[in-house]
Amino acid sequence: MTITWIAVDWGTTRLRAWAMRGTDVVQQASSDRGLATLEPGGFEAALLELITPWLGDGVTDVLVCGMVSARQGWIEAPYVPVPAKPGAPKAVQVPGTDPRLRVLLLQGLSQQEPPDVMRGEETQIAGFLRLNANWDGVICLPGTHTKWAQVSADEVVSFRTFMTGELFNLLARQSILRHSVDDGWDDRAFASAVDDMLSRPEALAARLFGLRARDLLQDVADGATAAALSGLLIGAELAASRPYWLGQQVSVIGADAMARLYVAALAQVGVPATLADVDRMTLEGLTTAYKSMRDAT
Amino acid sequence: MTITWIAVDWGTTRLRAWAMRGTDVVQQASSDRGLATLEPGGFEAALLELITPWLGDGVTDVLVCGMVSARQGWIEAPYVPVPAKPGAPKAVQVPGTDPRLRVLLLQGLSQQEPPDVMRGEETQIAGFLRLNANWDGVICLPGTHTKWAQVSADEVVSFRTFMTGELFNLLARQSILRHSVDDGWDDRAFASAVDDMLSRPEALAARLFGLRARDLLQDVADGATAAALSGLLIGAELAASRPYWLGQQVSVIGADAMARLYVAALAQVGVPATLADVDRMTLEGLTTAYKSMRDAT
Repeated sequence: MTITWIAVDWGTTRLRAWAMRGTDVVQQASSDRGLATLEPGGFEAALLELITPWLGDGVTDVLVCGMVSARQGWIEAPYVPVPAKPGAPKAVQVPGTDPRLRVLLLQGLSQQEPPDVMRGEETQIAGFLRLNANWDGVICLPGTHTKWAQVSADEVVSFRTFMTGELFNLLARQSILRHSVDDGWDDRAFASAVDDMLSRPEALAARLFGLRARDLLQDVADGATAAALSGLLIGAELAASRPYWLGQQVSVIGADAMARLYVAALAQVGVPATLADVDRMTLEGLTTAYKSMRDAT
Repeated sequence: MTITWIAVDWGTTRLRAWAMRGTDVVQQASSDRGLATLEPGGFEAALLELITPWLGDGVTDVLVCGMVSARQGWIEAPYVPVPAKPGAPKAVQVPGTDPRLRVLLLQGLSQQEPPDVMRGEETQIAGFLRLNANWDGVICLPGTHTKWAQVSADEVVSFRTFMTGELFNLLARQSILRHSVDDGWDDRAFASAVDDMLSRPEALAARLFGLRARDLLQDVADGATAAALSGLLIGAELAASRPYWLGQQVSVIGADAMARLYVAALAQVGVPATLADVDRMTLEGLTTAYKSMRDAT
C-alpha cells in the first residue's frame, strides 16, 4: 500500500485517521482515544496504534486538526488571530516523535474582542470553502460548544461560541430536569420553545424550572420535556446570534440530529440554511491544508 | 424536659429539628439525612435518631416543612394552589408512624400558569409575614432553585422559580469552565457581569463560553471567572424577574454569601432590598403553622 500522507481529526472524545494518496482515501481507522482519555506522554502511542500499518520506510507527514493542540493536549499550539484564511492554515510540528513521522498540528483561531477560541472547526470551514468557491455568509457548527463564523473573501472575519450543547447535556443528565427528560421527542414542543425564547430570551432560567413544574402538575407528552429543553437552549442561542444570521446566507456544518435541529430552528426564523456533512468537510479541510503546506514548501 | 411539640425542616441535604415548648426552643439537633440520602422506608428511623430523647409518654406533634413531602420524599403531599395564605397552611398526617408521634407534613404551593411549585419556602414566607405584619411586596428566596414570590394581604399571589443556583454549581464544577473557576472572588467582575446581562440578557450562553476564552487569551484576576459566572446568572435572573422587583418593596430571605449577592445585585438596579435570616424565618414559620393548626382544632 502506497500512501503519501495521513489525515487526522483528534478531538476530546474521538481519534480518527485516514491513509491518503494525494486527495484519495486509501484506508481509514478510528478509536475512542480522544484527548480526554489521554495523559501527557500517551498521545504518540495512541496515534501509532492506529497508523503503524500504514507507515513505510520513509518519513510520513501526519496532518492533525482538533482539540489535540489545546493546553491539555499533545503540545499546545498558538492560535491564529482572526481575520484568518482557514484554507491557508499554520501548523506546529510536534518535536521528538518516532522518526517515521512528521506530525503537524493545525493551529486554531482566536478573537480578542469578544474573547473567543476555536480548534478544529476552522478546518471544517476550510473544507466547506474549498467545495463552495467564493461563498460569503455565515457558517454554524453545532456541537458541545456551537460556533457561528462570519466568512467573507475566504476569511473567517469573526466568530462566537455558545455553550448550548454542554448546557443541554448537564441539564438533561444531571440537573433536577433529569427526572422529567425521557428518550422521546416532540417536534411541536421544540418549535414552541424556540419561539418562546426568540420573543423572551431573558426568561431562560425560569423556563428551565418551568419544565420540571409542568411535568409535576400537568400531563406532559413523552419527549416533550427533552424537546422543549433543546428548543429553549437553541432558541436562546438564535436570539443571541441574531446579528450573525439575520439577512445572511447560512450553512450548518454537522451530521447528527442536533445539526438538523439547528436547520429546523433557523427555518422558523425564515432562514433557509443548507446542511453540509461534517465528516466530508473535515477531510476536505485537512486535504486543503496539506496541499497548501506542500505548495508553500 | 417538658416539650409541647417538635419543629422540623427537612430538605434535600439536611434534616433539622427543634424541641419546642410553645414558642420557645428547648433544644435543637440536626443531621445530614436529607431526602437525597434516604430510601423509602428510611424516613421515620432518620427522624427518630434525632428526636427520640425528646419524646415523653404521650403523643408528640411533629410539624415538618420542606422537600420531604415531595414525590421522592416520605409521603407525597398535594400542593395548595396560589393564591394561598402561608400563615394558615394545610398539612398531611403520615400514616402508621410510631405511636408516640403525630407527624404532619406541611403542604407546598403550586401555580398553574406559568407552571411552578415550591416546598419549604412557603413556611419561610409565613415566618417573615408573622414578623412583618401587613407587609406587601416581593420576597426573593435564593437557593438551588431561587424563588420570587409576590405577597399581598398575607397571601402568596404568584411566584416564579429560577434554576440559577443549580446552573452555577453545574457550570462551575462540571463544565469546561471548571478549568477557569478558582476559589477567589472579584466584586468588580460580579457587578460588571450583572450589568451586562441586564442590558443583553439573551447573550448568556455566549458570555459563558467567553469566560473560558478570556481566561485562555488574557490575564484574568483570581476569582474573576467565578464572580463573573455568578454575576451573569444572577444578572440574567434579574432581567427575567424584572416584573417582580420593579417598583416593589423587596426582601431577600437567606443567610449565606449567595443571599448577599442578590442584595448587592438588586442595589445595582436601584432596589434597596432587606435581608432576613432564613433559619429564623423557618422556625418562626413552623411556629406560626403550629399555632394556626392548634387553634383550628
